[in-house]
Amino acid sequence: MRATQRRAAIRADHAPNAGTGQLDLGPLPNLTGYVLRRTQLAVFDDFIRTFALLGLRPAQFSALIAIQRNPGRKQSEIAAALGIKQANFVALMDKLDQRGLTRRVRSSTDRRSHALTLTPKGAALLQKALGVLEKYERRFVSQLGSGEHERLLELLRKIRLVSSAR
Amino acid sequence: MRATQRRAAIRADHAPNAGTGQLDLGPLPNLTGYVLRRTQLAVFDDFIRTFALLGLRPAQFSALIAIQRNPGRKQSEIAAALGIKQANFVALMDKLDQRGLTRRVRSSTDRRSHALTLTPKGAALLQKALGVLEKYERRFVSQLGSGEHERLLELLRKIRLVSSAR
Repeated sequence: MRATQRRAAIRADHAPNAGTGQLDLGPLPNLTGYVLRRTQLAVFDDFIRTFALLGLRPAQFSALIAIQRNPGRKQSEIAAALGIKQANFVALMDKLDQRGLTRRVRSSTDRRSHALTLTPKGAALLQKALGVLEKYERRFVSQLGSGEHERLLELLRKIRLVSSAR
Repeated sequence: MRATQRRAAIRADHAPNAGTGQLDLGPLPNLTGYVLRRTQLAVFDDFIRTFALLGLRPAQFSALIAIQRNPGRKQSEIAAALGIKQANFVALMDKLDQRGLTRRVRSSTDRRSHALTLTPKGAALLQKALGVLEKYERRFVSQLGSGEHERLLELLRKIRLVSSAR
Protein backbone atom coordinates (compact mmCIF):
# COMPACT_ATOMS: atom_id res chain seq x y z
CA MET A 1 0.00 0.00 0.00
CA ARG A 2 1.39 3.39 -0.93
CA ALA A 3 1.53 6.20 1.64
CA THR A 4 -1.23 8.19 -0.06
CA GLN A 5 -3.49 5.17 -0.18
CA ARG A 6 -2.77 4.39 3.44
CA ARG A 7 -3.63 7.94 4.48
CA ALA A 8 -6.84 7.77 2.50
CA ALA A 9 -7.69 4.40 4.04
CA ILE A 10 -7.18 5.80 7.51
CA ARG A 11 -9.34 8.79 6.71
CA ALA A 12 -11.98 6.49 5.28
CA ASP A 13 -12.03 4.32 8.40
CA HIS A 14 -12.47 7.40 10.56
CA ALA A 15 -15.16 8.96 8.39
CA PRO A 16 -18.12 10.25 10.41
CA ASN A 17 -20.44 7.54 9.22
CA ALA A 18 -18.15 4.52 8.90
CA GLY A 19 -18.87 1.43 10.96
CA THR A 20 -22.27 0.11 11.84
CA GLY A 21 -25.78 1.49 11.68
CA GLN A 22 -28.30 2.61 9.10
CA LEU A 23 -27.13 4.44 6.03
CA ASP A 24 -28.43 7.88 5.16
CA LEU A 25 -29.99 7.71 1.70
CA GLY A 26 -30.91 11.40 1.58
CA PRO A 27 -33.77 12.15 -0.83
CA LEU A 28 -33.88 8.64 -2.37
CA PRO A 29 -36.63 7.10 -0.18
CA ASN A 30 -39.00 9.88 -1.28
CA LEU A 31 -38.23 9.86 -5.00
CA THR A 32 -40.84 8.38 -7.34
CA GLY A 33 -38.38 6.36 -9.40
CA TYR A 34 -36.48 4.97 -6.42
CA VAL A 35 -39.63 3.89 -4.54
CA LEU A 36 -41.02 2.37 -7.74
CA ARG A 37 -37.86 0.40 -8.40
CA ARG A 38 -37.47 -0.94 -4.85
CA THR A 39 -41.13 -1.97 -4.83
CA GLN A 40 -40.93 -3.59 -8.27
CA LEU A 41 -37.85 -5.57 -7.23
CA ALA A 42 -39.55 -6.76 -4.02
CA VAL A 43 -42.66 -7.80 -5.97
CA PHE A 44 -40.58 -9.61 -8.60
CA ASP A 45 -38.50 -11.43 -5.95
CA ASP A 46 -41.77 -12.48 -4.34
CA PHE A 47 -43.12 -13.64 -7.71
CA ILE A 48 -39.97 -15.64 -8.41
CA ARG A 49 -40.19 -17.39 -5.02
CA THR A 50 -43.92 -18.04 -5.43
CA PHE A 51 -43.57 -19.47 -8.95
CA ALA A 52 -40.29 -21.31 -8.33
CA LEU A 53 -42.00 -24.71 -8.33
CA LEU A 54 -43.37 -23.98 -11.80
CA GLY A 55 -40.02 -22.53 -12.85
CA LEU A 56 -41.55 -19.32 -14.14
CA ARG A 57 -40.08 -15.85 -13.94
CA PRO A 58 -42.26 -12.77 -14.46
CA ALA A 59 -41.29 -12.14 -18.09
CA GLN A 60 -41.71 -15.83 -18.97
CA PHE A 61 -45.15 -15.82 -17.41
CA SER A 62 -46.12 -12.69 -19.38
CA ALA A 63 -44.81 -14.24 -22.58
CA LEU A 64 -46.88 -17.42 -22.10
CA ILE A 65 -50.03 -15.35 -21.53
CA ALA A 66 -49.40 -13.13 -24.56
CA ILE A 67 -48.65 -16.12 -26.82
CA GLN A 68 -51.71 -18.04 -25.64
CA ARG A 69 -53.99 -15.09 -26.32
CA ASN A 70 -52.39 -14.18 -29.65
CA PRO A 71 -51.34 -17.46 -31.24
CA GLY A 72 -49.44 -17.16 -34.49
CA ARG A 73 -48.22 -13.64 -33.81
CA LYS A 74 -44.66 -12.72 -34.69
CA GLN A 75 -41.97 -12.82 -32.03
CA SER A 76 -41.29 -9.11 -32.58
CA GLU A 77 -44.96 -8.22 -32.05
CA ILE A 78 -45.19 -10.11 -28.76
CA ALA A 79 -41.95 -8.54 -27.53
CA ALA A 80 -43.15 -5.05 -28.44
CA ALA A 81 -46.54 -5.54 -26.77
CA LEU A 82 -44.81 -6.63 -23.56
CA GLY A 83 -42.19 -3.87 -23.69
CA ILE A 84 -39.32 -6.39 -23.77
CA LYS A 85 -36.22 -5.65 -25.84
CA GLN A 86 -35.88 -7.91 -28.89
CA ALA A 87 -32.53 -9.37 -27.84
CA ASN A 88 -33.82 -10.20 -24.38
CA PHE A 89 -37.00 -11.67 -25.81
CA VAL A 90 -35.08 -13.97 -28.15
CA ALA A 91 -33.11 -15.33 -25.18
CA LEU A 92 -36.33 -15.75 -23.21
CA MET A 93 -38.00 -17.65 -26.09
CA ASP A 94 -34.95 -19.89 -26.47
CA LYS A 95 -35.48 -21.08 -22.89
CA LEU A 96 -39.23 -21.60 -23.29
CA ASP A 97 -38.61 -23.54 -26.52
CA GLN A 98 -35.93 -25.71 -24.89
CA ARG A 99 -38.38 -26.57 -22.12
CA GLY A 100 -40.94 -27.59 -24.73
CA LEU A 101 -43.43 -24.92 -23.63
CA THR A 102 -43.56 -22.95 -26.88
CA ARG A 103 -42.90 -23.47 -30.56
CA ARG A 104 -41.50 -21.02 -33.05
CA VAL A 105 -42.62 -21.62 -36.61
CA ARG A 106 -40.98 -19.82 -39.49
CA SER A 107 -43.58 -17.61 -41.10
CA SER A 108 -44.66 -18.69 -44.57
CA THR A 109 -45.12 -15.08 -45.67
CA ASP A 110 -41.95 -13.66 -44.10
CA ARG A 111 -39.21 -16.22 -43.75
CA ARG A 112 -37.15 -13.97 -41.43
CA SER A 113 -39.89 -13.90 -38.80
CA HIS A 114 -41.22 -16.51 -36.40
CA ALA A 115 -44.81 -17.15 -35.40
CA LEU A 116 -45.23 -18.23 -31.78
CA THR A 117 -47.59 -20.77 -30.28
CA LEU A 118 -47.87 -22.65 -26.98
CA THR A 119 -47.39 -26.41 -26.97
CA PRO A 120 -49.92 -28.51 -24.98
CA LYS A 121 -47.28 -28.70 -22.25
CA GLY A 122 -46.97 -24.90 -22.26
CA ALA A 123 -50.74 -24.47 -22.11
CA ALA A 124 -50.97 -26.88 -19.16
CA LEU A 125 -48.21 -25.06 -17.27
CA LEU A 126 -49.87 -21.69 -17.91
CA GLN A 127 -53.17 -23.08 -16.60
CA LYS A 128 -51.45 -24.07 -13.35
CA ALA A 129 -49.67 -20.72 -13.15
CA LEU A 130 -52.96 -18.82 -13.52
CA GLY A 131 -54.29 -20.72 -10.50
CA VAL A 132 -51.25 -19.71 -8.43
CA LEU A 133 -51.52 -16.16 -9.72
CA GLU A 134 -55.05 -15.75 -8.46
CA LYS A 135 -54.02 -16.32 -4.82
CA TYR A 136 -50.82 -14.35 -5.31
CA GLU A 137 -52.64 -11.29 -6.62
CA ARG A 138 -55.43 -11.55 -4.07
CA ARG A 139 -52.97 -10.92 -1.29
CA PHE A 140 -52.08 -7.48 -2.63
CA VAL A 141 -55.74 -6.59 -2.99
CA SER A 142 -56.66 -7.81 0.49
CA GLN A 143 -53.73 -6.01 2.13
CA LEU A 144 -54.53 -2.67 0.54
CA GLY A 145 -58.28 -3.04 0.19
CA SER A 146 -59.67 -3.29 -3.31
CA GLY A 147 -60.41 0.44 -3.60
CA GLU A 148 -56.88 1.41 -2.62
CA HIS A 149 -55.40 -1.29 -4.83
CA GLU A 150 -57.35 0.03 -7.81
CA ARG A 151 -56.23 3.57 -6.90
CA LEU A 152 -52.61 2.38 -6.89
CA LEU A 153 -52.91 0.91 -10.39
CA GLU A 154 -54.56 4.12 -11.65
CA LEU A 155 -51.80 6.30 -10.19
CA LEU A 156 -49.15 4.03 -11.70
CA ARG A 157 -50.80 4.29 -15.11
CA LYS A 158 -50.80 8.10 -14.79
CA ILE A 159 -47.11 8.13 -13.89
CA ARG A 160 -46.38 5.90 -16.88
CA LEU A 161 -48.18 8.35 -19.16
CA VAL A 162 -46.33 11.35 -17.70
CA SER A 163 -43.01 9.58 -18.26
CA SER A 164 -43.82 8.40 -21.77
CA ALA A 165 -44.98 11.89 -22.77
CA ARG A 166 -41.72 13.69 -22.28
CA MET B 1 -62.46 -4.74 -8.99
CA ARG B 2 -64.33 -7.33 -6.91
CA ALA B 3 -62.95 -10.82 -6.36
CA THR B 4 -65.42 -12.42 -8.77
CA GLN B 5 -64.59 -9.91 -11.48
CA ARG B 6 -60.91 -10.41 -10.89
CA ARG B 7 -61.26 -14.18 -11.23
CA ALA B 8 -63.24 -13.66 -14.40
CA ALA B 9 -60.54 -11.35 -15.74
CA ILE B 10 -57.82 -13.84 -14.89
CA ARG B 11 -59.70 -16.83 -16.28
CA ALA B 12 -61.33 -15.13 -19.25
CA ASP B 13 -61.11 -17.42 -22.24
CA HIS B 14 -58.66 -16.38 -24.84
CA ALA B 15 -59.89 -15.30 -28.23
CA PRO B 16 -57.71 -15.96 -31.25
CA ASN B 17 -56.27 -12.61 -32.12
CA ALA B 18 -53.87 -13.35 -34.94
CA GLY B 19 -53.54 -10.81 -37.71
CA THR B 20 -53.18 -7.10 -37.27
CA GLY B 21 -54.15 -4.69 -34.53
CA GLN B 22 -53.70 -4.53 -30.79
CA LEU B 23 -52.63 -7.61 -28.92
CA ASP B 24 -54.79 -9.08 -26.20
CA LEU B 25 -52.73 -9.20 -23.00
CA GLY B 26 -55.48 -10.80 -20.93
CA PRO B 27 -55.11 -10.13 -17.20
CA LEU B 28 -51.63 -8.55 -17.45
CA PRO B 29 -52.70 -4.86 -17.61
CA ASN B 30 -54.52 -5.30 -14.28
CA LEU B 31 -51.83 -7.21 -12.40
CA THR B 32 -49.87 -5.35 -9.72
CA GLY B 33 -46.46 -6.65 -10.81
CA TYR B 34 -47.01 -6.03 -14.51
CA VAL B 35 -48.27 -2.45 -14.02
CA LEU B 36 -45.42 -1.75 -11.61
CA ARG B 37 -42.82 -3.04 -14.04
CA ARG B 38 -44.15 -1.17 -17.09
CA THR B 39 -44.35 2.04 -15.05
CA GLN B 40 -40.88 1.58 -13.59
CA LEU B 41 -39.41 1.00 -17.05
CA ALA B 42 -41.13 4.12 -18.42
CA VAL B 43 -39.86 6.21 -15.49
CA PHE B 44 -36.32 4.86 -15.86
CA ASP B 45 -36.30 5.50 -19.63
CA ASP B 46 -37.44 9.03 -18.87
CA PHE B 47 -34.70 9.40 -16.24
CA ILE B 48 -32.04 8.13 -18.65
CA ARG B 49 -33.14 10.63 -21.33
CA THR B 50 -33.31 13.49 -18.82
CA PHE B 51 -29.89 12.77 -17.33
CA ALA B 52 -28.19 11.80 -20.60
CA LEU B 53 -26.23 15.05 -20.74
CA LEU B 54 -24.75 14.27 -17.33
CA GLY B 55 -24.26 10.63 -18.35
CA LEU B 56 -26.03 9.29 -15.29
CA ARG B 57 -28.25 6.24 -15.09
CA PRO B 58 -30.62 5.73 -12.13
CA ALA B 59 -28.41 3.28 -10.21
CA GLN B 60 -25.33 5.46 -10.75
CA PHE B 61 -27.21 8.47 -9.45
CA SER B 62 -28.35 6.52 -6.37
CA ALA B 63 -24.81 5.32 -5.76
CA LEU B 64 -23.39 8.86 -5.89
CA ILE B 65 -25.99 10.06 -3.37
CA ALA B 66 -25.38 7.13 -1.01
CA ILE B 67 -21.59 7.54 -1.19
CA GLN B 68 -21.74 11.29 -0.61
CA ARG B 69 -23.93 10.88 2.46
CA ASN B 70 -21.97 7.94 3.86
CA PRO B 71 -18.33 8.54 2.95
CA GLY B 72 -15.94 5.77 3.87
CA ARG B 73 -18.61 3.06 3.96
CA LYS B 74 -17.81 -0.31 2.48
CA GLN B 75 -18.83 -1.12 -1.06
CA SER B 76 -20.91 -4.05 0.24
CA GLU B 77 -22.79 -1.80 2.68
CA ILE B 78 -23.69 0.76 0.02
CA ALA B 79 -24.83 -2.00 -2.36
CA ALA B 80 -26.98 -3.61 0.33
CA ALA B 81 -28.56 -0.30 1.34
CA LEU B 82 -29.52 0.37 -2.29
CA GLY B 83 -30.72 -3.19 -2.92
CA ILE B 84 -28.19 -3.71 -5.74
CA LYS B 85 -26.57 -7.13 -6.18
CA GLN B 86 -22.86 -7.16 -5.31
CA ALA B 87 -21.72 -8.25 -8.77
CA ASN B 88 -23.76 -5.52 -10.45
CA PHE B 89 -22.55 -2.94 -7.96
CA VAL B 90 -18.90 -3.80 -8.60
CA ALA B 91 -19.44 -3.23 -12.33
CA LEU B 92 -21.25 0.04 -11.60
CA MET B 93 -18.41 1.25 -9.35
CA ASP B 94 -15.83 0.31 -11.98
CA LYS B 95 -17.49 2.75 -14.37
CA LEU B 96 -17.77 5.55 -11.80
CA ASP B 97 -14.11 5.05 -10.87
CA GLN B 98 -13.00 5.09 -14.51
CA ARG B 99 -14.82 8.39 -14.97
CA GLY B 100 -13.00 9.81 -11.97
CA LEU B 101 -16.21 10.36 -10.01
CA THR B 102 -15.48 8.03 -7.11
CA ARG B 103 -12.52 6.45 -5.38
CA ARG B 104 -12.27 3.03 -3.82
CA VAL B 105 -9.73 2.75 -1.02
CA ARG B 106 -8.75 -0.59 0.40
CA SER B 107 -9.78 -0.68 4.04
CA SER B 108 -6.92 -0.75 6.54
CA THR B 109 -8.93 -2.95 8.91
CA ASP B 110 -10.29 -5.39 6.30
CA ARG B 111 -8.06 -5.67 3.26
CA ARG B 112 -10.74 -7.48 1.25
CA SER B 113 -13.14 -4.57 1.45
CA HIS B 114 -13.18 -1.14 -0.14
CA ALA B 115 -14.25 2.15 1.38
CA LEU B 116 -15.99 4.49 -1.07
CA THR B 117 -15.74 8.26 -1.42
CA LEU B 118 -16.67 10.84 -4.05
CA THR B 119 -13.92 12.76 -5.80
CA PRO B 120 -14.36 16.55 -6.15
CA LYS B 121 -15.41 15.84 -9.77
CA GLY B 122 -18.02 13.35 -8.52
CA ALA B 123 -19.33 15.80 -5.94
CA ALA B 124 -19.64 18.53 -8.60
CA LEU B 125 -21.52 16.22 -10.97
CA LEU B 126 -23.88 15.13 -8.20
CA GLN B 127 -24.56 18.77 -7.35
CA LYS B 128 -25.62 19.40 -10.97
CA ALA B 129 -27.69 16.21 -11.02
CA LEU B 130 -29.58 17.22 -7.87
CA GLY B 131 -30.56 20.46 -9.63
CA VAL B 132 -31.92 18.51 -12.62
CA LEU B 133 -33.63 16.05 -10.28
CA GLU B 134 -35.62 18.77 -8.57
CA LYS B 135 -37.37 19.77 -11.79
CA TYR B 136 -37.67 16.16 -12.91
CA GLU B 137 -39.39 15.08 -9.70
CA ARG B 138 -41.57 18.17 -9.54
CA ARG B 139 -43.28 17.12 -12.75
CA PHE B 140 -44.60 13.91 -11.20
CA VAL B 141 -45.87 15.81 -8.18
CA SER B 142 -47.56 18.51 -10.27
CA GLN B 143 -49.18 16.00 -12.61
CA LEU B 144 -50.70 13.94 -9.79
CA GLY B 145 -51.11 16.68 -7.21
CA SER B 146 -48.95 16.47 -4.12
CA GLY B 147 -51.58 14.62 -2.04
CA GLU B 148 -52.03 11.92 -4.68
CA HIS B 149 -48.31 11.67 -5.25
CA GLU B 150 -47.74 11.11 -1.54
CA ARG B 151 -50.56 8.55 -1.57
CA LEU B 152 -48.84 6.71 -4.44
CA LEU B 153 -45.56 6.49 -2.52
CA GLU B 154 -47.37 5.24 0.59
CA LEU B 155 -49.20 2.55 -1.37
CA LEU B 156 -45.95 1.48 -3.03
CA ARG B 157 -44.25 1.20 0.38
CA LYS B 158 -47.14 -0.96 1.60
CA ILE B 159 -46.85 -3.26 -1.43
CA ARG B 160 -43.12 -3.54 -0.85
CA LEU B 161 -43.76 -4.61 2.75
CA VAL B 162 -46.39 -7.17 1.70
CA SER B 163 -43.93 -8.64 -0.82
CA SER B 164 -40.96 -8.67 1.54
CA ALA B 165 -43.03 -10.31 4.28
CA ARG B 166 -43.82 -13.52 2.47
